[in-house]
Amino acid sequence: MADAATIRTTIDAYCAAFTADRDGWLALFADDATVEDPVGTDVHRGKEAIGAFWDVSHGMADEIVLTPSRYVKVAGNEAAFAMDARMQAGDDVNGMSIIDVMTFDDAGRITSQRAFWDFTDLGPVD
Amino acid sequence: MADAATIRTTIDAYCAAFTADRDGWLALFADDATVEDPVGTDVHRGKEAIGAFWDVSHGMADEIVLTPSRYVKVAGNEAAFAMDARMQAGDDVNGMSIIDVMTFDDAGRITSQRAFWDFTDLGPVD
Repeated sequence: MADAATIRTTIDAYCAAFTADRDGWLALFADDATVEDPVGTDVHRGKEAIGAFWDVSHGMADEIVLTPSRYVKVAGNEAAFAMDARMQAGDDVNGMSIIDVMTFDDAGRITSQRAFWDFTDLGPVD
Repeated sequence: MADAATIRTTIDAYCAAFTADRDGWLALFADDATVEDPVGTDVHRGKEAIGAFWDVSHGMADEIVLTPSRYVKVAGNEAAFAMDARMQAGDDVNGMSIIDVMTFDDAGRITSQRAFWDFTDLGPVD
């Protein structure tokens, strides 16, 4: 089992890389990982599908910045963490909060990701 | 499916009732609900087992107060939310943060609860 420090490192890298490092972000996932983002939508399985999810997400904004909150909770090989997303599209800047729930393999790579958010949460931010 | 407002009402009641309203808190759960608190420990199934979990939790402190954070995220019939727990035992006051992940039935009752936290998170607070 990955230790909590390793899992926290993956979480920090997940948020940091999401802005502009597609390869670095995908490298954080196990080969057969799943992404359900948001919860209730189709599950993306494997790096090709997860990479396509990245492309769709980044097609919706010029820049996306994920900032982890102080709520980063690790329990065994699972974790839940809250973050704030800031999305810039032209002159429009919107934000919302998200809670991700993840499982990890022994190397600390993400084996599953489920993201709790709703488009109705999205609103203008500075 | 319960709507998001109903689920948010259950979450607020869950936090508020946990301090001192055992019956009101148990009434928020479906009959065959499960509680895994913290994640990775034995699952409590059904109201009798969940009531026993309440008793053990409250045996560890004179008073427990759960304060929801601004991270309360509903997705379909599921939700994740971050909160701060404050536990007073005699003159000692300790706190930690928690993220709960829950599923709900059509009436907005909790069908499963999984709580992400670790005793190493616990520390003195004012």
